[in-house]
Amino acid sequence: MSRPVPVALIGVGGVGKAILQQLLAPPLASKFNLILIANSRKALSLPLPTNAPVTPANFLPILEEHGAPLDVPSVISLLASHPDGPGIFIDSTGAEAVPALYPTVLGHGVHVVTPNKKGTSGDLELYKAIEEASYPNSRALIYGESTVGAGLPILSSLKDLVGTGDEIEKIEGVFSGTLSYIFNEYSKVEGGDVAFSEVVKIAKDKGYTEPDPRDDLSGADVARKLTILSRLVPTAPELPKGYASVPTQSLVPPVLENASTKEEYLERLAEGDSYFANLREEARKEGKVVRYVGVIDIANNKVECKLGKYDFDHAFATALKGSDNIISFHTKRYSPRPLIIQGAGAGADVTAMGCTSDLLKIYERIRL
Amino acid sequence: MSRPVPVALIGVGGVGKAILQQLLAPPLASKFNLILIANSRKALSLPLPTNAPVTPANFLPILEEHGAPLDVPSVISLLASHPDGPGIFIDSTGAEAVPALYPTVLGHGVHVVTPNKKGTSGDLELYKAIEEASYPNSRALIYGESTVGAGLPILSSLKDLVGTGDEIEKIEGVFSGTLSYIFNEYSKVEGGDVAFSEVVKIAKDKGYTEPDPRDDLSGADVARKLTILSRLVPTAPELPKGYASVPTQSLVPPVLENASTKEEYLERLAEGDSYFANLREEARKEGKVVRYVGVIDIANNKVECKLGKYDFDHAFATALKGSDNIISFHTKRYSPRPLIIQGAGAGADVTAMGCTSDLLKIYERIRL
Repeated sequence: MSRPVPVALIGVGGVGKAILQQLLAPPLASKFNLILIANSRKALSLPLPTNAPVTPANFLPILEEHGAPLDVPSVISLLASHPDGPGIFIDSTGAEAVPALYPTVLGHGVHVVTPNKKGTSGDLELYKAIEEASYPNSRALIYGESTVGAGLPILSSLKDLVGTGDEIEKIEGVFSGTLSYIFNEYSKVEGGDVAFSEVVKIAKDKGYTEPDPRDDLSGADVARKLTILSRLVPTAPELPKGYASVPTQSLVPPVLENASTKEEYLERLAEGDSYFANLREEARKEGKVVRYVGVIDIANNKVECKLGKYDFDHAFATALKGSDNIISFHTKRYSPRPLIIQGAGAGADVTAMGCTSDLLKIYERIRL
Repeated sequence: MSRPVPVALIGVGGVGKAILQQLLAPPLASKFNLILIANSRKALSLPLPTNAPVTPANFLPILEEHGAPLDVPSVISLLASHPDGPGIFIDSTGAEAVPALYPTVLGHGVHVVTPNKKGTSGDLELYKAIEEASYPNSRALIYGESTVGAGLPILSSLKDLVGTGDEIEKIEGVFSGTLSYIFNEYSKVEGGDVAFSEVVKIAKDKGYTEPDPRDDLSGADVARKLTILSRLVPTAPELPKGYASVPTQSLVPPVLENASTKEEYLERLAEGDSYFANLREEARKEGKVVRYVGVIDIANNKVECKLGKYDFDHAFATALKGSDNIISFHTKRYSPRPLIIQGAGAGADVTAMGCTSDLLKIYERIRL
């Protein structure tokens, strides 16, 4: 049996906790050695001096009481100099500051696993620095499967297509679980006249949206995912500012753009209803439903996030349910019918699974 | 740049030729060094003494004229002792004899990539010997992504789910491109009264079936795929005889079971029409379509291939088109909605892609 790989987990929100859960249970527990957990302020080295076991249930108060202030450079040293290292740095924060350090982490030979979209969906400069510091330019690996579609095999499939010489023609999908739910409820093949504001409120009550639903409705999250995918396609347009370079249709209707607080926005949400009702009605007359999609269209050199209309018998109309993501890859080989991957694209357990499957891939590469 | 990995390709039918095409073109060409190609009789060492380039277009007459008799043990030695080795043995034959040698190949440290289902879907004894000779029990790797769903990421996704501790509850899918086409045409949501024999004949004329359509209609191919998947699920029933242990409904109707030749079978095909028409009508009355599916049902400890009836709004009824495969994974994490992967499950280019993406995975592990 090979020596377990040392791992540090930064960020213990919902996803971080689920990563912890999977990491400490079979079959992963024997392959990895968790040497540090941290939130945004404090870090706890493991094992504890008392050798008491750390569990997903008990770690938080221990971290608060016994943690030292988080110092990322010393976490990097710990992973780089560990006798079983270099180890793996898991960034489960949502911060901008941590991804800015990926080139440094990788430069120390430490591997990175991240569900944090900020590193690979921002400025091209950071992206290039990450590329230069990682495999095949060094032995340090970086995996971010769960930055798009959570645990769904989206990035790995795209890498396989590109890596084996297929030509990507179009990638089209519903990339946001929140917007999937909202439009699956709002615009159905069988019709219905529920108000848009009602659906958004239900989504918020069910916990499907960010605290401020405008963070979902702005489309920025979808633009980040498209950026990450585009950068894996050699023929896609360059996006110098990352997600900020992606034309993105906002779903905060013009009449509500001047709402200054989320409370005001939520209160006035119904003012936008006629805007969306018109869209739905227009689509319906064409035998279509409305979906919020991300599209990478290579032939037309376009990357964009927008409302699209899809025929009643299109997979985005019939197959899509709940808050599922669905992503279709149209390629030279997968033509005329695309390769389609569908399933939960959000949620702590499946997002964590994207990370732990990345951990496994690194394990299998460094412990062969 | 790392040294290219030596590769031998045995089997140059449709899939083998497509592998050759992908292997000799960018981006793979720089990573691999094709040192031998062979059909079932002859082997050709590369590069040619004249240094003339071998291409997918010109290799066949050269192989016929200059090839030496194929001797698998010497191919193994070549790959094992190559200065850049151990290399990779690609079995693109449909033979039983070659997979029987996988334990030997792996025992020499040589890696295996195979679209040939015979090795992992037969007797448990051979399967166990393959397991014992390969990673993590040795450094030799074996990948067979395209044995199920061609280039679709079916095996890799299942390995990720199991490897990260998810619990598989049910795997259900349309695993045969041929049977997908036949039932998508025969039993439609919108109805239709085409005869079963007509659809089979059209499928045969389009080249979608084996030369003897009974090879598809027997369900054995689906049973092999289920066997391969089951063996990756620790909680699935043991299948000591592999596919022969899977209860498999044959679509050669009772009235035609005594047809002795494929000609007689094809001629008498219409005698089975009323059998299938009854099935279709029965399903229709329940608001369902008929599909030929493979099911691994862990709760009920069952693996089986059978005709199933699916609601008009089920993905197998609405989303499935052409000769696509569709496979759904119901797991503890992907619940209540499954993870679904869909797309072409047959065809030389996509099957070859399953193999070349396996080659890449091996490359990334041994050339880190």
